[in-house]
Amino acid sequence: MNFNYQMPTKLLFGPGKLNELVKESLPGKKALIVISSGTSMKKNGYLERVIKILEKQNIDHIVFDKVLPNPVKVHVMEGAALAKSEGCDFVIGLGGGSSIDSAKSIALMAKNPGDYWDYIGGGTGKGLEPTEGALPIIAITTTAGTGTEADPWTVITKEETNEKIGFGNIHTFPTISVIDPELMLTVPKQLTAYQGFDALFHATEGYLANIATPISDAYALKSIELASKFLPLCVEDGKNLEARTQVALANTLSGFVESTSSCISEHSMEHALSAHYPKLPHGAGLIMLSEAYYTFFASKAPNRMTDMAKAMGVHVESLSSDEQPLAFVKALQKLKEDCNVSDLKMSDYGIKKEEIPKLAENARQTMGALFELDPYHLSLEETIEIMSSAYK
Amino acid sequence: MNFNYQMPTKLLFGPGKLNELVKESLPGKKALIVISSGTSMKKNGYLERVIKILEKQNIDHIVFDKVLPNPVKVHVMEGAALAKSEGCDFVIGLGGGSSIDSAKSIALMAKNPGDYWDYIGGGTGKGLEPTEGALPIIAITTTAGTGTEADPWTVITKEETNEKIGFGNIHTFPTISVIDPELMLTVPKQLTAYQGFDALFHATEGYLANIATPISDAYALKSIELASKFLPLCVEDGKNLEARTQVALANTLSGFVESTSSCISEHSMEHALSAHYPKLPHGAGLIMLSEAYYTFFASKAPNRMTDMAKAMGVHVESLSSDEQPLAFVKALQKLKEDCNVSDLKMSDYGIKKEEIPKLAENARQTMGALFELDPYHLSLEETIEIMSSAYK
Repeated sequence: MNFNYQMPTKLLFGPGKLNELVKESLPGKKALIVISSGTSMKKNGYLERVIKILEKQNIDHIVFDKVLPNPVKVHVMEGAALAKSEGCDFVIGLGGGSSIDSAKSIALMAKNPGDYWDYIGGGTGKGLEPTEGALPIIAITTTAGTGTEADPWTVITKEETNEKIGFGNIHTFPTISVIDPELMLTVPKQLTAYQGFDALFHATEGYLANIATPISDAYALKSIELASKFLPLCVEDGKNLEARTQVALANTLSGFVESTSSCISEHSMEHALSAHYPKLPHGAGLIMLSEAYYTFFASKAPNRMTDMAKAMGVHVESLSSDEQPLAFVKALQKLKEDCNVSDLKMSDYGIKKEEIPKLAENARQTMGALFELDPYHLSLEETIEIMSSAYK
Repeated sequence: MNFNYQMPTKLLFGPGKLNELVKESLPGKKALIVISSGTSMKKNGYLERVIKILEKQNIDHIVFDKVLPNPVKVHVMEGAALAKSEGCDFVIGLGGGSSIDSAKSIALMAKNPGDYWDYIGGGTGKGLEPTEGALPIIAITTTAGTGTEADPWTVITKEETNEKIGFGNIHTFPTISVIDPELMLTVPKQLTAYQGFDALFHATEGYLANIATPISDAYALKSIELASKFLPLCVEDGKNLEARTQVALANTLSGFVESTSSCISEHSMEHALSAHYPKLPHGAGLIMLSEAYYTFFASKAPNRMTDMAKAMGVHVESLSSDEQPLAFVKALQKLKEDCNVSDLKMSDYGIKKEEIPKLAENARQTMGALFELDPYHLSLEETIEIMSSAYK
């Protein structure tokens, strides 16, 4: 048992917590507020509330509102240029994972020279060390999906090369994160489900990863328990604040897992899909892959799969030792049905079966590092096998 | 469900981890190394190892070696004066809780004017806000007791007034903490037991506290489970590295509990005892109080007491609902027997029965804030009742 632990972000968690941000000491005098190109932050009044909080603290701001659902490098560079030209000294990511991840990458590039891809470690990235830190980051999450409010990671796509790659260091942990489930009540059913499964898979992958620690395990099992118990209630009734709160906690805990363990190759495979098909939501891609993925790993990490089945509420004691690990897959399939996401198909997003080998190679090239953290080392052939079985 | 969360310390955890401190970026060029007035840090070679790590990084140092088992304010002021006169820009606490707590308080007073008690919130403290932060703190723990490596708290005694009071703020979290169970192999049996119970009670009190959160609960139950399972093995064979490692983790998790929930009145009562009788080890005082304390609270917080019994491995299902909360007390008594600490008596340390009312009042005066966090508000009479029942 040997590990490092660090999760320096201050979290403000709970219904109504956004109001308390006004009492916090914010890390600058002019904020770049990063939001998506959609309308929800304005329509729901969240942007206005954040601006009022800044005004009460005499903090200036400027809004960057171009972030796409799968955020792209060109917007990171554009946001960073804006932060520099406007003299912003901190960055606020307001919205879902795409806005907060963009805020992190913009904060990095507002301080470091060159191109964002200079600092990316996989694919065509140059893997340089950013030596200048990053502007302080405030994350205000309006979804329960990526856990990015409690981890240093940001995932950005380089469109020209269809690469979707993660980055993070100690400077890209948010300084403060607000997790206010009241801001999540308006997330549509389908998105709620996609994001909830993303959170779930951060926890399950982090539990299977060969770098898991007793601390990440505690976070992961609690996250799996809460997500599987409360996600169907959120999907059924988005206004159920108690269920939203529990799923928000599951998601934040999955961010802790990301900070203390890691995603594994399921995420690499999905990034290959949504990098090539940007209309495919990340959570939906994971859902499509998951049955084949976890069925493959049931025999490779049987004890951990059984633990996860238990966390999902399965009484495994009555099952044979062969059935126990697969009980997790069964519970997962049931959860998909309960959340109305059991019929997702790659073909519906235009993915062709004959592309799978190319996508599998892309997964290994762009995010090969996560394959090293799997509990069993997949070959290219096995990667293709999993992705092909997942194809519908 | 509404809480703030912050535990910014970077932890290096595991056997051999002290060696990895040399790879960390340390927060200054001259360290004040704070150790106890005993000989163990020198005899075991730990001080020399730390000095070598500093030398490899071209960091200067000076040693302050006066800390007492119950550390006192006069040494905090003396250490801070030394740090200032020698131009130290960070403080290393090497040893048990007393050395690390002293390092925290010295780091505070090296930056802030006046007397340490100016900033203390209870008793005769003036409760001023220290506005100048603190020098960065590195904690290297050689015991598994206080959890201070993973929380901001420091407990110092003002001898003139027999006050033993806690203090902490965001600046007194260690920047880096090293938890290397190899450094704990030489802790004597009795001290191992006292400290292990201190860790256990941080977790149990934090689980009962009315400010507990789902995150602190996860830490607390895991800590209780590990401490009760592995402490007897550590007491039996101090060289059992696996058991030492698990108890070290229990202790670090109890520090997380301290950071996210709080101790309650059991700790206030103990501080009154060991402030007046400095030869009484803190852990021993807690052990003496615990049977009476938890028996009293069994009916006040029955569900949480039952959860803790389960975490200690009790199968509560076969018990009646009245017996379930008390099952925790029984398991606790069994654990004391297994660790050879079931015969501790206040009278052995010179405490007189007729002093109990005065000590109860001292507990409420100096650390009254913790009484506010109890799951049930104790009157003075009930405080006296608990402490009197604990008297042997």
